[in-house]
Amino acid sequence: MAKGITPRKEDYSQWYLDVIAAADLAEHSAVKGCMVIKPNGYAIWEMIQGQLDRMFKETGHVNAYFPLFIPESLMHKEAEHVEGFAPECAVVTHGGGKKLEEALFVRPTSETIIWSTYKNWIQSYRDLPILINQWANVVRWEMRTRLFLRTTEFLWQEGHTAHASAAEAEEETLKILDVYRRFAEEYLAAPVYVGFKSEKEKFAGAVRTYCIEAMMQDRKALQAGTSHNLGQNFSKAFDVTFQDEQGKLQHVYATSWGVSTRLVGALIMTHSDDNGLVLPPRLAPLKVVLIPIWKEDAEMERMRQHAQALTASWQGKISFKIDDRDQYRPGYKFNEWEKRGIPIRIEIGPKDVAAQQVVVVRRDTGEKIAMPQENLLAKIEALLEEIQNNLLQRARALRDDNTFTVDAYDDFSARIENPGGFFRVHWCGSELCENKFQETSRATIRTIPLDETKEQGACIVCGAPSKGRVLVAKSY
Amino acid sequence: MAKGITPRKEDYSQWYLDVIAAADLAEHSAVKGCMVIKPNGYAIWEMIQGQLDRMFKETGHVNAYFPLFIPESLMHKEAEHVEGFAPECAVVTHGGGKKLEEALFVRPTSETIIWSTYKNWIQSYRDLPILINQWANVVRWEMRTRLFLRTTEFLWQEGHTAHASAAEAEEETLKILDVYRRFAEEYLAAPVYVGFKSEKEKFAGAVRTYCIEAMMQDRKALQAGTSHNLGQNFSKAFDVTFQDEQGKLQHVYATSWGVSTRLVGALIMTHSDDNGLVLPPRLAPLKVVLIPIWKEDAEMERMRQHAQALTASWQGKISFKIDDRDQYRPGYKFNEWEKRGIPIRIEIGPKDVAAQQVVVVRRDTGEKIAMPQENLLAKIEALLEEIQNNLLQRARALRDDNTFTVDAYDDFSARIENPGGFFRVHWCGSELCENKFQETSRATIRTIPLDETKEQGACIVCGAPSKGRVLVAKSY
Repeated sequence: MAKGITPRKEDYSQWYLDVIAAADLAEHSAVKGCMVIKPNGYAIWEMIQGQLDRMFKETGHVNAYFPLFIPESLMHKEAEHVEGFAPECAVVTHGGGKKLEEALFVRPTSETIIWSTYKNWIQSYRDLPILINQWANVVRWEMRTRLFLRTTEFLWQEGHTAHASAAEAEEETLKILDVYRRFAEEYLAAPVYVGFKSEKEKFAGAVRTYCIEAMMQDRKALQAGTSHNLGQNFSKAFDVTFQDEQGKLQHVYATSWGVSTRLVGALIMTHSDDNGLVLPPRLAPLKVVLIPIWKEDAEMERMRQHAQALTASWQGKISFKIDDRDQYRPGYKFNEWEKRGIPIRIEIGPKDVAAQQVVVVRRDTGEKIAMPQENLLAKIEALLEEIQNNLLQRARALRDDNTFTVDAYDDFSARIENPGGFFRVHWCGSELCENKFQETSRATIRTIPLDETKEQGACIVCGAPSKGRVLVAKSY
Repeated sequence: MAKGITPRKEDYSQWYLDVIAAADLAEHSAVKGCMVIKPNGYAIWEMIQGQLDRMFKETGHVNAYFPLFIPESLMHKEAEHVEGFAPECAVVTHGGGKKLEEALFVRPTSETIIWSTYKNWIQSYRDLPILINQWANVVRWEMRTRLFLRTTEFLWQEGHTAHASAAEAEEETLKILDVYRRFAEEYLAAPVYVGFKSEKEKFAGAVRTYCIEAMMQDRKALQAGTSHNLGQNFSKAFDVTFQDEQGKLQHVYATSWGVSTRLVGALIMTHSDDNGLVLPPRLAPLKVVLIPIWKEDAEMERMRQHAQALTASWQGKISFKIDDRDQYRPGYKFNEWEKRGIPIRIEIGPKDVAAQQVVVVRRDTGEKIAMPQENLLAKIEALLEEIQNNLLQRARALRDDNTFTVDAYDDFSARIENPGGFFRVHWCGSELCENKFQETSRATIRTIPLDETKEQGACIVCGAPSKGRVLVAKSY
């Protein structure tokens, strides 16, 4: 247990905040509900951005940028959308020293400003598809905020695509859902359940909202990404039509999809431990820290030089750092890099030099491994992959061990309090029964899984027929 | 002369807008003063961002993120700063459906929110320096907007650093000025004058503002980047102190510096011609386009395959594209890629295949070069560098040919109207004389050059003694 970090068992919420403070990732700002993302936290976001951006580009998307402000009249064009978002908007009423004729909403999401723009870009099927992504800040007024997980301003990417057919839009929605799933599993090392939201939980203005849901260590769910098939809702609201190959005028089909700085919160809560942050190696800005150790001052220079010689060929191949500060003792340094979640620590003392070895310490398990110096970089790279895999396996085991199939409501309502988890239950499809999860257990239908076998059953709430199980959990 | 592009000589302002439209870079949005940066324009910004980010990191800076909003009370802490910026701010008065107790300014720049944060980060000299950069959007209300050059919302980077001494802050300010100069010359291929602003023109809250000033093809100046030594103005306003090595409490020294999407405007106006955009190769998202040419349908497949075989080994080494669309004729394609500014076009027809050559066309000069196919990639890469150099030389020649040394006010005021340019004149240092440039010629002191020999002289306006020449020009 590390100084300054509350153990998870004692107070999970406080542990989360302590891990963030100990790793110096973010803090609350002078602006209510908004956070400052500090350099250590922002570097993780840059890793996330970089990888997702590559994946979007590989799937044919390009980046663009649309205005921060949305005129009130545009915001009101799609009825469900404005109902869902207007109450949580920040509103600019004055600009350049004058009261504005029309108020400007700070974007909570950009469907309206983007579809008012696409109207001018689309005339014919030849103009389709449009496959655009935007990296941006958005604002949604929040009463109860939590660093990374729920803040009034957050950073995200939002994709907005336009298609000539319903089938193409659905294909795009699912393609991105799969990008998100792959990113969560292969980079965040967070296994996710994949499915779609109930009518009640879907995005305001969507036909269908797909999502990925991850389990945190306290067994609560975290929605880590959503991909919406918007059908023709926005194209009809903004009158965006195209002439199809047969010369017929049709409304365009739309999708939108996003992930946010919330992913940093997911990363923290999936892997970290009572000693602080644990970074999955593929998203660690700094992957290896090398600490030369000396007892007498006379040894210092020799050990420094040895550390440098050992890593001379590593430049540009791996992100590493030699911590040879002489004002701190090794124990202090070990603790510091542990709290910051660096995947691998390498210790080299005079005895190691003599034995032509190093001591390698894994952040995920704490295991110490004596390693011959020969061909060290390749071994370190292999170990990073092993750590990445181990984190995924560990998270998957936790999730699988805490996903339960239950058929009696009493059973569900007792177990969701203790030990908690994800519950596969039959549900009839009515909002009345859906509300009961919330009312009695503060739980929600997280997702209607795509890969669930379509098993017949009886709704766990009302007993009416159900066509398949849904996943219910408490969530962030 | 290309269809749809007004020649520069006829109407330079319209030419600029036509080039942007022809290359599909950006457009005005539904929000007054805000632009939509379209994928082609945003891709250029991504190239600019990528290179600058590398240069900032190489000089020891890290990225972070601070809130979009600034509470009104914070904005008011530094007197000159609020006077300069408050009148052009957008103000949020409502959030979450309620009137706010304190209005929030949408950041026009982030000194105030950042220095209110640094106050909690800095206690001792050990906490210094702080070397942080932020990539963000900012809002400054503008009456007359111009795509990329002056928009109400724009994208930029803003560095904010904290130091233990005045000397260190000055060193940082100049280090970044040099990063900007190098970026302008080596990447934008835009030679710049380097110097500092007069008291009147400096940043609101700065002790000294350094800048780089480029000359556009209409001989007007464009301020392309600024680096401010803020002295202790913000640390005093926000009471940010540190204990120095002697245990004495001191106020921290600050710098801030930024460049914005305006650089895309600078790029366009420095290099483009009457046929459209000309991209400097190092900032061109797409560097080479290859167009297979066939006369009869039977040849199409063979030519396509040839183009693919020729470039099979280019993947991952250079950004290129094969344009083998069969619904467009070669002439249409040539024109399209020319308008978009792609540095090199390669044409391959059946005769070229027979002769084992290609025809290479330079965007900067229009020159056509028959090139043997052997070792083509290396030759193309060398040509890209040659184009990059040629653009810089051409821009430098234009600038040097239009920078004049004058000593009589009548001479200055006649020549700044026709032919225009930069004027090296003696100035006594008084604001009264500075204002006269503006009043009589709508010109301003662009910069007080750093490399100017300190020549004694008489102020061109009042005749009082002057210690050196300054650069005066009309500007964007």
